[in-house]
Amino acid sequence: MTLPSGCPSTIDLNADVGESFGRWELGDDAALLPHLTSANVACGFHAGDPLTLRRTCDRAVAHGVVIGAQVGYRDLAGFGRRFIDVAPDELEADVLYQLSALSGIAAAAGGAVAYLKPHGALYHAVSSQEAQADAVIAAVVAFGGLPVLGLAGSPFLSRVAAAGLPTVGEGFADRAYLPDGGLVPRSEPGAVLVDSSAVAAQAVRLAQSGDVQSLCIHGDSPGAAASAAAVRAALSDAGIAVKAFVGPSS
Amino acid sequence: MTLPSGCPSTIDLNADVGESFGRWELGDDAALLPHLTSANVACGFHAGDPLTLRRTCDRAVAHGVVIGAQVGYRDLAGFGRRFIDVAPDELEADVLYQLSALSGIAAAAGGAVAYLKPHGALYHAVSSQEAQADAVIAAVVAFGGLPVLGLAGSPFLSRVAAAGLPTVGEGFADRAYLPDGGLVPRSEPGAVLVDSSAVAAQAVRLAQSGDVQSLCIHGDSPGAAASAAAVRAALSDAGIAVKAFVGPSS
Amino acid sequence: MTLPSGCPSTIDLNADVGESFGRWELGDDAALLPHLTSANVACGFHAGDPLTLRRTCDRAVAHGVVIGAQVGYRDLAGFGRRFIDVAPDELEADVLYQLSALSGIAAAAGGAVAYLKPHGALYHAVSSQEAQADAVIAAVVAFGGLPVLGLAGSPFLSRVAAAGLPTVGEGFADRAYLPDGGLVPRSEPGAVLVDSSAVAAQAVRLAQSGDVQSLCIHGDSPGAAASAAAVRAALSDAGIAVKAFVGPSS
Amino acid sequence: MTLPSGCPSTIDLNADVGESFGRWELGDDAALLPHLTSANVACGFHAGDPLTLRRTCDRAVAHGVVIGAQVGYRDLAGFGRRFIDVAPDELEADVLYQLSALSGIAAAAGGAVAYLKPHGALYHAVSSQEAQADAVIAAVVAFGGLPVLGLAGSPFLSRVAAAGLPTVGEGFADRAYLPDGGLVPRSEPGAVLVDSSAVAAQAVRLAQSGDVQSLCIHGDSPGAAASAAAVRAALSDAGIAVKAFVGPSS
Repeated sequence: MTLPSGCPSTIDLNADVGESFGRWELGDDAALLPHLTSANVACGFHAGDPLTLRRTCDRAVAHGVVIGAQVGYRDLAGFGRRFIDVAPDELEADVLYQLSALSGIAAAAGGAVAYLKPHGALYHAVSSQEAQADAVIAAVVAFGGLPVLGLAGSPFLSRVAAAGLPTVGEGFADRAYLPDGGLVPRSEPGAVLVDSSAVAAQAVRLAQSGDVQSLCIHGDSPGAAASAAAVRAALSDAGIAVKAFVGPSS
Repeated sequence: MTLPSGCPSTIDLNADVGESFGRWELGDDAALLPHLTSANVACGFHAGDPLTLRRTCDRAVAHGVVIGAQVGYRDLAGFGRRFIDVAPDELEADVLYQLSALSGIAAAAGGAVAYLKPHGALYHAVSSQEAQADAVIAAVVAFGGLPVLGLAGSPFLSRVAAAGLPTVGEGFADRAYLPDGGLVPRSEPGAVLVDSSAVAAQAVRLAQSGDVQSLCIHGDSPGAAASAAAVRAALSDAGIAVKAFVGPSS
Repeated sequence: MTLPSGCPSTIDLNADVGESFGRWELGDDAALLPHLTSANVACGFHAGDPLTLRRTCDRAVAHGVVIGAQVGYRDLAGFGRRFIDVAPDELEADVLYQLSALSGIAAAAGGAVAYLKPHGALYHAVSSQEAQADAVIAAVVAFGGLPVLGLAGSPFLSRVAAAGLPTVGEGFADRAYLPDGGLVPRSEPGAVLVDSSAVAAQAVRLAQSGDVQSLCIHGDSPGAAASAAAVRAALSDAGIAVKAFVGPSS
Repeated sequence: MTLPSGCPSTIDLNADVGESFGRWELGDDAALLPHLTSANVACGFHAGDPLTLRRTCDRAVAHGVVIGAQVGYRDLAGFGRRFIDVAPDELEADVLYQLSALSGIAAAAGGAVAYLKPHGALYHAVSSQEAQADAVIAAVVAFGGLPVLGLAGSPFLSRVAAAGLPTVGEGFADRAYLPDGGLVPRSEPGAVLVDSSAVAAQAVRLAQSGDVQSLCIHGDSPGAAASAAAVRAALSDAGIAVKAFVGPSS
């Protein structure tokens, strides 16, 4: 197969993992991880107890999957999905704390935290609340600098780039897009694509568009592993290699 | 003044700091820190929110005070003072998480975590519960190794030493001792020395005994800073230099 | 079928419900509840967010199932399964708080809290730690008095009875018993009966023994609802009616 | 002294109490409570552990002070001062849970919860976020109905009244007001009155205005008890009796 000229020949696949908490299990990380190239590991503030984080990092390293810090608001009851109006200096410290905690655990597993991705309500807030965006960025800078994964084309990634940090734009294979590049809100009908061939087709289209460097797979749905496998197969058929955007943790 | 031959000429002074949590302030760290050589900084599980940790590390670095990780049970409501029967693999992960979180924050402040000290009920549990002691030790080893500060002569420090980690034995200037070297329980009369000259005298005696490498000052009492100053003065009069047991964080 | 004379003709069936927390679901309460006569609803300290509690009480009332307060240690990360050495006055207040919170939610659902059952590590602690047993009992008394559900024949229930509160002794259809009436620890092989006919047979035997007033079904295993249905069928075949030990909440 | 005709001759004095949490003490409730007629007792979600709540209720009953439920967001780290975008059904359940918990504790102390007052960020949110206002109101209705204390003249109290619940409008003796009746934001200079004669004068003016039924004293400042005493003296000199807006808890 001949790729259209100018088309990217590789794409990253990321998903949220490590989101169990104590007795409560969420997602089938063991089945999902082998399909990923980048694992967004929860850091304990909205999900993920320390033992879960450790086992998840062990598993990611065993599969050669790159580890990223999935940071969020301090809100276990809300799973980080509720906006919290945290003061910038507190948010910066909260993010630095989470990043550092996961970093030490990843290191003990023989890996390293290679990027940061905001989770849930924080993912959305950083595009509309400049003070919160800058707090997250300041935490990454205080940590020593890391690539930041976020919505491709978002104002947040522009601020990240302006701060001199590498950016990684992601797209969603299973979410409907608005004409302006935003996502159709989950509250609207048709927001989530359920037909697996439609998901696979959108994955290929996004990868070929050159607009995104990573595709996000939702990790906490029952069929997450099967969905990831289907996306990989479709990308492979289209001649697009699945490859982490950074080298494997080491 | 001539020191008795064989007597140590230096001693470390440590205290708990960084134990505020959000709106709730505890201890006067700004006043206490300049008197210390080693600061046991809370790590967020029993006390210490991330912004408090960051400010505390900034302050410790500014004063050239060595930073240690004050790790404890996950129990804000109990301030880490209640024994919790945590499974060893969970405790190991909990301690590694706390150590890592503080480590990143200390690094952002231009310092480093230079030792670990168990807090509250964990401090006591590690001398009687071998599985918990080994879990704490395993966390330090997984982190890459650090000196461990604990009760001088305790079974815990023996296990730490057997694991190949440096040990630092501490004594309490303001607590009454039992003949066997243990502490008089707080529930008994006379357990805490209140007379400042008695405290100073015990500090000098402990330092001269050669049995302890560090003296612990209680940081959360109203007169903590004054007490620390009095101990320093008495040690100075006795010709004993106050000096960290490890070099300053850098 | 003729019942042996003196045998009880009714038995209660209880199980833990309402143990989800925010994003994390646990147990299939909707399927399990219709099979129960008594629902041990979590109260928020070790499991159960307020909205889960409310929905669970609504459901229990809809099915005519009696509501009990499943109280535990303040330990979401440990699901209440780790012993915590809580001081008696704190434990009494913690239990009274949980009991009161669920009581108001049950009332809003048109029901009422009709009994208390300690959960997890607290369930076991109250039989060996008299101070904790008395703290739980004091909380029930402070609340105005309620029947207490616990291990049949346990020292805890003796203390409850001595305090003038009604006791309800329970047995486990799916757990192996020791000759002394205690449970085989979960860590030993054969501790949990998996064969459904063995479980049903033990349920009938326990009900006929007259030693227990209630049978506990484990609610958080995948086959909980099916297991409850099988136990009900076996009891029915043996001529034993399944009936709450107290009248329905109202 | 002759009161201007039409002027109210009584006013309520309320303050936040019960805001300690475990090891962390906040406010001097023992000194402040005797000066109050209404005590806004924290309910555990943003402040107040169960034992603190119990002791606070005991004290309020001993002094004949009316108990109100100070409900807030689930945010200990933020002391309830950060807006959280909680879904209405979750917020309703959270408020009902808090109200119920305090209610049972107040009853055990021989008192009762006689009103509700939103705390911190929730206090402000209910005037601008109708869904959150309605969720709080729904919780009060589900509880069986109670008077609601809030900012005098606020849109929130209008919604409360429209729902058929009694309203109690409060004013602040120590805060500067905007021409429109709103408060000068704390971030602006002069927002908080510090001169005690100015505070006392404003207390008298607000009480005489007839616009407020209760005056709020800030309970967590060091001079709270002295300030409350000064306000009471000034009101007494002006011939205004200090009296709870509802009868004492019983």
